[in-house]
Amino acid sequence: MGIVKLIEHAEAAPEVRAVFDEIMHVRGTDWINNFWKALANDPALLRRTWENAKQVMAPGALDPLVKEMLYIAVSATNGCEYCIHSHTAAGRAKGMSDAMLMELMAVVGLANQTNRLAEGLRIPVDPQFK
Amino acid sequence: MGIVKLIEHAEAAPEVRAVFDEIMHVRGTDWINNFWKALANDPALLRRTWENAKQVMAPGALDPLVKEMLYIAVSATNGCEYCIHSHTAAGRAKGMSDAMLMELMAVVGLANQTNRLAEGLRIPVDPQFK
Amino acid sequence: MGIVKLIEHAEAAPEVRAVFDEIMHVRGTDWINNFWKALANDPALLRRTWENAKQVMAPGALDPLVKEMLYIAVSATNGCEYCIHSHTAAGRAKGMSDAMLMELMAVVGLANQTNRLAEGLRIPVDPQFK
Amino acid sequence: MGIVKLIEHAEAAPEVRAVFDEIMHVRGTDWINNFWKALANDPALLRRTWENAKQVMAPGALDPLVKEMLYIAVSATNGCEYCIHSHTAAGRAKGMSDAMLMELMAVVGLANQTNRLAEGLRIPVDPQFK
Amino acid sequence: MGIVKLIEHAEAAPEVRAVFDEIMHVRGTDWINNFWKALANDPALLRRTWENAKQVMAPGALDPLVKEMLYIAVSATNGCEYCIHSHTAAGRAKGMSDAMLMELMAVVGLANQTNRLAEGLRIPVDPQFK
Amino acid sequence: MGIVKLIEHAEAAPEVRAVFDEIMHVRGTDWINNFWKALANDPALLRRTWENAKQVMAPGALDPLVKEMLYIAVSATNGCEYCIHSHTAAGRAKGMSDAMLMELMAVVGLANQTNRLAEGLRIPVDPQFK
Repeated sequence: MGIVKLIEHAEAAPEVRAVFDEIMHVRGTDWINNFWKALANDPALLRRTWENAKQVMAPGALDPLVKEMLYIAVSATNGCEYCIHSHTAAGRAKGMSDAMLMELMAVVGLANQTNRLAEGLRIPVDPQFK
Repeated sequence: MGIVKLIEHAEAAPEVRAVFDEIMHVRGTDWINNFWKALANDPALLRRTWENAKQVMAPGALDPLVKEMLYIAVSATNGCEYCIHSHTAAGRAKGMSDAMLMELMAVVGLANQTNRLAEGLRIPVDPQFK
Repeated sequence: MGIVKLIEHAEAAPEVRAVFDEIMHVRGTDWINNFWKALANDPALLRRTWENAKQVMAPGALDPLVKEMLYIAVSATNGCEYCIHSHTAAGRAKGMSDAMLMELMAVVGLANQTNRLAEGLRIPVDPQFK
Repeated sequence: MGIVKLIEHAEAAPEVRAVFDEIMHVRGTDWINNFWKALANDPALLRRTWENAKQVMAPGALDPLVKEMLYIAVSATNGCEYCIHSHTAAGRAKGMSDAMLMELMAVVGLANQTNRLAEGLRIPVDPQFK
Repeated sequence: MGIVKLIEHAEAAPEVRAVFDEIMHVRGTDWINNFWKALANDPALLRRTWENAKQVMAPGALDPLVKEMLYIAVSATNGCEYCIHSHTAAGRAKGMSDAMLMELMAVVGLANQTNRLAEGLRIPVDPQFK
Repeated sequence: MGIVKLIEHAEAAPEVRAVFDEIMHVRGTDWINNFWKALANDPALLRRTWENAKQVMAPGALDPLVKEMLYIAVSATNGCEYCIHSHTAAGRAKGMSDAMLMELMAVVGLANQTNRLAEGLRIPVDPQFK
């Protein structure tokens, strides 16, 4: 069980409902996932977070599937259960295969390993990299 | 200063020198960066880590630049100075522009933010994501 | 299921029971939560941890509710399920409203985001801050 | 040295300069710290991050000094050098004494300790906390 | 539920089955735990990870039980549920008592506490330690 | 530069000086490292942290060198520069060789890698481990 109430569309204040409607419109879905229902306890936080996510995850210099995979890489590193599930689903909807997911995880594993070797041995950065 | 000696090519044992030579050959460079010089204190660890990195970062279901960016995303999340510098250099050598790097960081920032909102509010995973 | 047995008051050794009794007395409750029952497998660890928590969380230069909120901020950052639940309950008992909790989480989210932007871009500290 | 160029006011594009001017106006200062100069490499990221920070850190259900302390608690947990320096300076400007800072750190230390005891022993959450 | 299918021995490709058989042979068991069944979605990742684990956890300059305890210390710090359970079981099979586990956790707790005090206060490293 | 003043023995209040003297006596040294000089800004925190460290790191079910190595494993995982330097020095003083340190780091690297594979793939814990 969560820490705060999940606010449903039917009971939401107008400014919350407006964000919910926009989320469903942009995504072409007819339901709202729990993340937004929880943030709805603070309508300003809900609005800001949605605006940010919409802009950051949109196509730009990087394509949206690469962005989903970067998001998953961070979430796996942090061990965020909710985010791993929701963004793996989003990645798959954008074309991520099991083979791509497994390679992504192999890179995440390698980076977490070598990050600690570099940190633990306090290896000085080569001047060539600066 | 690091925790262990950095072992130079000239003074390295043959099994270390063999890995160093392979690294330079595969990468088409004439120098070895400090990460490998530090691992050389344990030749078996050096050999295993190089074999893994070579295989994981090679082209596969994901292309090498995407893999570099995933690696940077993890390293920024963990705050690993050495790894951020070395893999940003590697990413740039493979075509990562400043615009791509900044978008990568925007996703890393967003994911670290929303990871904590999801974890901190203990938001239950929607059945649709499982 | 946990990794170690939860030790109940009725079966506890005298030095464990003494800590349990003090916890209930100081808090004005008639039950012991699982955290302390697990630590009771090492009576010295139980005693030290309770003494520390009692002193650190007491009123001082900061008031106890601010301390609970700092504790929650760390626990959300680390993703500690047990600690989020137990200290959110403690915070609420000391007057933390849902609005306060949501603002707390907004700060935690922001800090986790900007921490990674600063770390990932290796931004040098301004001399004015030192 | 950082990973990207620090963009100065004199050379900044108009949309960057507009954010820089607003930051100095809101804070009543005549200089811009490096964090914003680095984000200026992506003007949209700079704008979004500033808008968020301005709103999240403003007075609300929590007062601004409490918010600064929550921010410091997260930054100390993540080990973000830049953020610790910049927000300790901000906290002090808002009235945080050394005694308050030391108590803050004592709570951060305690929470990081007990988070791992709870996680490492996989202690089940008491039904009373849910 | 996991993110990928758990691949059972009966349905596994020959190169996966070869790793599974070796795991059971080396460990003297007649079952495969879920970690390997999940990695089997990428046979090369399965093979590499098993080879590494086998070599790293083998007797060397450190004895295998110390290595299991180091592994548990990392896993408790990262809050990895799966790894805590599997390596606590492995540690116990190698002779780790409850008293040893509790002392291990006390060190993990202390280190996580003092790590944040040192990082949060940005304490400069004494020249004597370098 | 640190966030707080480092308090020297000559200028310390009597209750701080008493802890400093005890540290030098127990360790058989004639100097105090910066960690304690920083904590001295809060004499109660200094006293509590020293008492805890003294008790936790003492011989018990685990020997002191194993405890130092567990401490290093946590510090490398967290990337705490101060703690890595100070406890590597302590470990070496207790007999840790370079070969032992490198194996320790290999385990730390492996655990950080496999922790993320297990978390990222949300691998369910086998009933046999519970």
